[in-house]
Amino acid sequence: MTSNVCVLGAGRMGSSIARTLLDRGYSTWVWNRTAAKCEPLAALGAKVAPSVEDGIRAADVVIINVLDYAASDALLKRDGIGSVLAGKAVVQLTSGSPRLAREEARWVEAHGARYLDGAIMATPNFIGKSETALLYSGSRDVYEKHKPLLSALGGGTSYVGELAGQASALDTALLTQMWGGLFGALQGMAVAEAEGLDLETFKSHLSAFKPVVDAALFDLVDRTNARRFAGDDATLASLGAHYSAFRHLLEACEERGLNAAMPRAMDMIFRQALSLGRMEDDFASLAPLFRNGSPPQNGEATNA
Amino acid sequence: MTSNVCVLGAGRMGSSIARTLLDRGYSTWVWNRTAAKCEPLAALGAKVAPSVEDGIRAADVVIINVLDYAASDALLKRDGIGSVLAGKAVVQLTSGSPRLAREEARWVEAHGARYLDGAIMATPNFIGKSETALLYSGSRDVYEKHKPLLSALGGGTSYVGELAGQASALDTALLTQMWGGLFGALQGMAVAEAEGLDLETFKSHLSAFKPVVDAALFDLVDRTNARRFAGDDATLASLGAHYSAFRHLLEACEERGLNAAMPRAMDMIFRQALSLGRMEDDFASLAPLFRNGSPPQNGEATNA
Repeated sequence: MTSNVCVLGAGRMGSSIARTLLDRGYSTWVWNRTAAKCEPLAALGAKVAPSVEDGIRAADVVIINVLDYAASDALLKRDGIGSVLAGKAVVQLTSGSPRLAREEARWVEAHGARYLDGAIMATPNFIGKSETALLYSGSRDVYEKHKPLLSALGGGTSYVGELAGQASALDTALLTQMWGGLFGALQGMAVAEAEGLDLETFKSHLSAFKPVVDAALFDLVDRTNARRFAGDDATLASLGAHYSAFRHLLEACEERGLNAAMPRAMDMIFRQALSLGRMEDDFASLAPLFRNGSPPQNGEATNA
Repeated sequence: MTSNVCVLGAGRMGSSIARTLLDRGYSTWVWNRTAAKCEPLAALGAKVAPSVEDGIRAADVVIINVLDYAASDALLKRDGIGSVLAGKAVVQLTSGSPRLAREEARWVEAHGARYLDGAIMATPNFIGKSETALLYSGSRDVYEKHKPLLSALGGGTSYVGELAGQASALDTALLTQMWGGLFGALQGMAVAEAEGLDLETFKSHLSAFKPVVDAALFDLVDRTNARRFAGDDATLASLGAHYSAFRHLLEACEERGLNAAMPRAMDMIFRQALSLGRMEDDFASLAPLFRNGSPPQNGEATNA
């Protein structure tokens, strides 16, 4: 039995979701605050819901994709909605923080519905493709029952945990790693250009150096996972060795008048670890310092 | 005609360099402050120089690899050295900043010798391997004349420019990109674990997401190189879209009491760009903000 779906929000992403579902033969209702945005979808066979209530009432699965949680709250958190939600599967695909996802789960569940939170790791034009990843957390029942429908939106769909905030947290964690590398590239390019190097040269060496960087990245994750912070035979470079090279970056920024906001933040963290006696420890020994702003009190695994 | 080489410094890296040269049949002199460290090399056929002066005098090519430039200065910048340097090729492999390399080049050249500065992108055990990268800048003549010898130390040897500081700058630039990604991973892991996710889950999704991150990285370099900062059809995500997701990181750090030094530095740069009206511009439009701490005055390419 095919589910009836309602997609609330027909912006670029919501429309792409609705089109993909229609294409796979799902009976699809759509609603959008500006009704005109539903017209192209209606032309493809979507049924246009006259109101949010009507859309929810007609569907087993309610997919929400609007600008942000404030917009989502404006749709859902008002009279008349709570009573039609009972028994529905609510799939929140609006981008938000882990906290917002957790709060939304409590609200939805309090109204007798089940809640699945999703993070879309792609732009709208990638919805429906085999390589597109969507991360889900919250109700495992909803995920299992509607897996064919959810997988229609992206072949790389996966369930990451029962806590509603976990999809958003994993999304944020992956983007954070990406932003680190991108901001690092921006900083590195500024250093290279300040010394008269062109960015073609930077790029070709960045490619050549990539296997080393990737190996260091996955080694860092493995060591942090295993809490193997002390330096050992497999340590690629000790914290002291990293910091010795890192000081050249600080000097280059100062000498060339480059923005040093990022290097200064890194320097603060490096120096905090070194002040804890971690010179000979692995780079991964920085990990505990990220959990909170103050140094760990119990002296986690260190050579000292 | 094979060159006579002198390697000053027989620590882990210097010894690995000397061993590799001996292995390739180069007539190799070695010197180290603690002479005992030369003994294993002597057993392999190295000639031990009784003094730095003697080592330099015996060689055409002088390779220096000591702890830092201060240690290098202590060897070279004293009476009796200047007079034996004339006509030699000095290859400085001690790790240092671009400024130190530039100053060293001036000093060496003032004593009638030619100067090549090198950055070793590897740990000692990788010296001599086909994939090992060494970056060189400074005297092109020295590089061309001694290319077989230099390439013996690593198959990925390349010459990056005539300014002595350029090898160090490129080394620093590449490491900066790496540190960005590593610090980003540490921050991301803290966010994931704060929400109860295990790092195996993080790692598997990090692998799956890698192609997206790599594409964004090289796109950023290409756009920065071309100064294509305005948003266009090929823009992967606008600065506004990035920042909208980025705020979830700030919120997660605040809610979970995570170290926010890195996110705060990134936030400052994001907000500076947004205050310049770059919401719809490409992520690459952050690049000019890294060149100096203050906003550009001439309003580089922007949609605004």
